Parts: sequence; C-alpha cells; structure tokens
Amino acid sequence: MLRPRFVLFGDSLTQRSFEDGGFGAGLTSAYQRKADVVLRGYSGYNTRWARLLLLKVFPVSSLVPAKLVTVFFGANDAALPDRLGARQHVPVKEYSDNLRAIVEHVRRAGAEDVLLITPGPVHEPARVQHNREERGAAPSTEVPERTNAVAEQYAAAAKRVGQALDAPVLDLWTALQREPGWEALLSDGLHFNEAGQRAVREALLSFIAERLPHLRPDAMPDDFPSHRDIDEACPADSFAES
Amino acid sequence: MLRPRFVLFGDSLTQRSFEDGGFGAGLTSAYQRKADVVLRGYSGYNTRWARLLLLKVFPVSSLVPAKLVTVFFGANDAALPDRLGARQHVPVKEYSDNLRAIVEHVRRAGAEDVLLITPGPVHEPARVQHNREERGAAPSTEVPERTNAVAEQYAAAAKRVGQALDAPVLDLWTALQREPGWEALLSDGLHFNEAGQRAVREALLSFIAERLPHLRPDAMPDDFPSHRDIDEACPADSFAES
Repeated sequence: MLRPRFVLFGDSLTQRSFEDGGFGAGLTSAYQRKADVVLRGYSGYNTRWARLLLLKVFPVSSLVPAKLVTVFFGANDAALPDRLGARQHVPVKEYSDNLRAIVEHVRRAGAEDVLLITPGPVHEPARVQHNREERGAAPSTEVPERTNAVAEQYAAAAKRVGQALDAPVLDLWTALQREPGWEALLSDGLHFNEAGQRAVREALLSFIAERLPHLRPDAMPDDFPSHRDIDEACPADSFAES
Repeated sequence: MLRPRFVLFGDSLTQRSFEDGGFGAGLTSAYQRKADVVLRGYSGYNTRWARLLLLKVFPVSSLVPAKLVTVFFGANDAALPDRLGARQHVPVKEYSDNLRAIVEHVRRAGAEDVLLITPGPVHEPARVQHNREERGAAPSTEVPERTNAVAEQYAAAAKRVGQALDAPVLDLWTALQREPGWEALLSDGLHFNEAGQRAVREALLSFIAERLPHLRPDAMPDDFPSHRDIDEACPADSFAES
C-alpha cells in the first residue's frame, strides 16, 4: 500500500507545528501507519509569496496527490500596511483572491480534501512587548504591527473563500478565543506556546473527526499487517497482499 | 529544490516517535525547511518481519533516495524465546544477519547515510507489572518477558554490525543508562515516556551533530528564500532559482 499524504501548507504557524504539542506532530502521531504528514510551512510568508511556490510544492503531475492539504495563511497578510510588518502586508481583497487561487491549484494538483485554517487571534500588548524587545524602544514599536480586529477581517475572508469553494474552514480565530485566558496560549502575541500548540492540535483533530469523518484515523487502514496477525511459521504469506 | 528525505525505520519505539518530546517530531522540527522526515515505524515488528517490508519501504528504483535512514530494531527480537513474547523472538545471530541485510538493502536503494540505533534498556520490574496488568496474574506474568542483560546482547550485536559495515551506531542501551534514574524514562519498562522521548531526541540530535556533521541542520540549505530576502517589488524574481 502506498501511504497517502497530508500536506501542511502555511506560514510560521505551520512551520513550527512539530514543536512540543504541535498539530503537525499530533497529526503524524494520530495517523501513524496510515498517512505521511508533509511539512510545507514557510515562516514569514504571506499568500502573495505562497502563490509563487505552488507549482513546486504541489506539482500538477504529482504521482501521489495529497489526500488532505491544510492551507493556513493570513497571519502575515494581516500585518498592518503602515507599521513594522508593512513588507508582509497583503490587502484583504488580494488575500481572498490568493487563497482562492491556492485552493484551486491544490485541487487541480489532485488533492482530495482541502481544509482552510483561518489566522489565529492576536494579543496586541504582547506584540508591542515583543517588538520592543526585538528592535528597542521607538515610535514604531509603541503600537502593535498587527491587531486582533484586523486578524478577524482576514479570518472572515478565509471563511467566505471556504464557503464559496465548498472547502471546510477551521475558524481558529474564534475557536482559540473561546478558551478563557486565550492570551496565555501565545508566546509573543502571535505564535503558539506549548499550551497553544496543544489547543490548535485538539481543535484540528476534532474538526477533522467532525467535518471530514472519512479521514478519521480509525476510518483509514494501517499499512502492512499488525504484528499480531503475522503468520509466525510463514511470515511472508502475511505480506503477500500488502 | 527537492527536499531530501530522512526515513525512520523501526518498531514501536520509532512508530511512537512523534509523541510529545519524541525524536521523530524533534528531527522534523530541527530540519524544518531542510528535510522531510518520513515515519516508517512498525509496532511489534522484529527484524525478520522488517526484512519482508524492505522492497516496499525502500524501493530500489526510488526517484528520491533517502539522505538518512535510521534503523532501530531489536526490542522485539530480544523478547525471550520461552516467555510471553516468544512469537517476536529472533535469535541474536539471525538478528545480526537481518540487520546487515537491512543496511545493505537500504544502501542499495540509494540511502546516503544509514544510522543504526541499538535497542534501549529494559526495566524488568516494570515489565512484570505491565504484563500482569495486561494479562492478569499467572505464572507467565511473574517473570519478565524481556531482560536488560539480553537487550545488551542485541545492542552489542548491532554495534558489531555497524562496525563491520562502517555505519555509525547510536548505542542507546548505554546512553540512556548513563542518566541517573534511567528507569523513570520508560513507561512500561520498554517504551519511552515523555522524559524518555526527550532523552532519545537529545541523544540522537547530538549524535548526528558529532558523527554526521554534514547532516547538521545548519549545514543543510533551507528550501526557498527566507521571507526577509524576498524582493518586495518583484517577488517572482526571488524564486527564479529555487
């Protein structure tokens, strides 16, 4: 059996998803013997730059199309256009167009299911503190370079793209803020600390179980027989069909 | 750039290596943007059964041969032939022959580096307790089905195979027992709990850094440009060569 692939495509929130408690590691563990989880996270990337990777990350002629692709961008697109992260800013209209192009390309490359993940919430005081620590006190570090209200606009745009393209959307902006003290899930007001990683992992695994039940781990076969089923006397017989 | 692959081939100690703190997740994190870590762990398998997977897991005609393969078997081969795990037992002489065949096949399939990992230590009282909990009190559960002394013989055999084939060997049996209170690294006297997972991860990353310096994360290129190097005005130019 050729094991199916799950591809995690996104920015640093994806790139760092194999840290302790992370959703990448969590998916790999949940789908051991069932699916290969492929990490395609690109720290700092917005959707404009991500589009330039599409043909390489998802070649249309791929021999083994992905069974599931998670598309998790927006945290950098939502950087404000007149502050520290201006370089990364992409207007919300273009963000929507880019997300749509990404989903359409990934489907054209054979992906069976595409799952959109909205950007998570932003804790502004922690961003200010982080920027001040990184760059020193200055007028530019007195105001956050991302805000939670703007993150919400990008999350809403991702949801609209999902609806229009009939792709399921995990609304992480809302899901994380349902947790009391959600600010403590973020290490720098944007990235997940270990508790945040675990919260995202749980949200994603629950979402898959509910919205994509054919992809539940127990709905997917293991590759090769369980060691309990191997014929002790003639083990090769147990592998004839696998 | 086609990202190189690291393949983790082994038994349950490999299959479970994406649990919290695990070496699979740790390698994926350490090699983000640099290498794909592919999990090929088969719980309960000994080397006799693992050999039956070789042509499928490591096809000789593979388009993308592995850059690194870890081969981590022996925990099941070392089950005693006259106790509960008898089904999994493989004599140490055959274990050596099988390991040699695995390394030779993996190299023939194009792997650049093969790293052997010896079985880890066994904490016998915890095995007795585990077996009693799993199967109830009985004469067969009063004695451990694996012993630390026998695990050492398999670890020694793996080291000899590595020397003979000029393959580096991480001696986990010795490395873990160097830690005071090493018994507390195991959940059931055999598998790693979270502290054990972290200890194995550290041992493996240090071993790679020391013995395979060309595979150190900082010696391997990232795929695609850093977001800091993308030309804001003409982003496509930044991807022309990648």
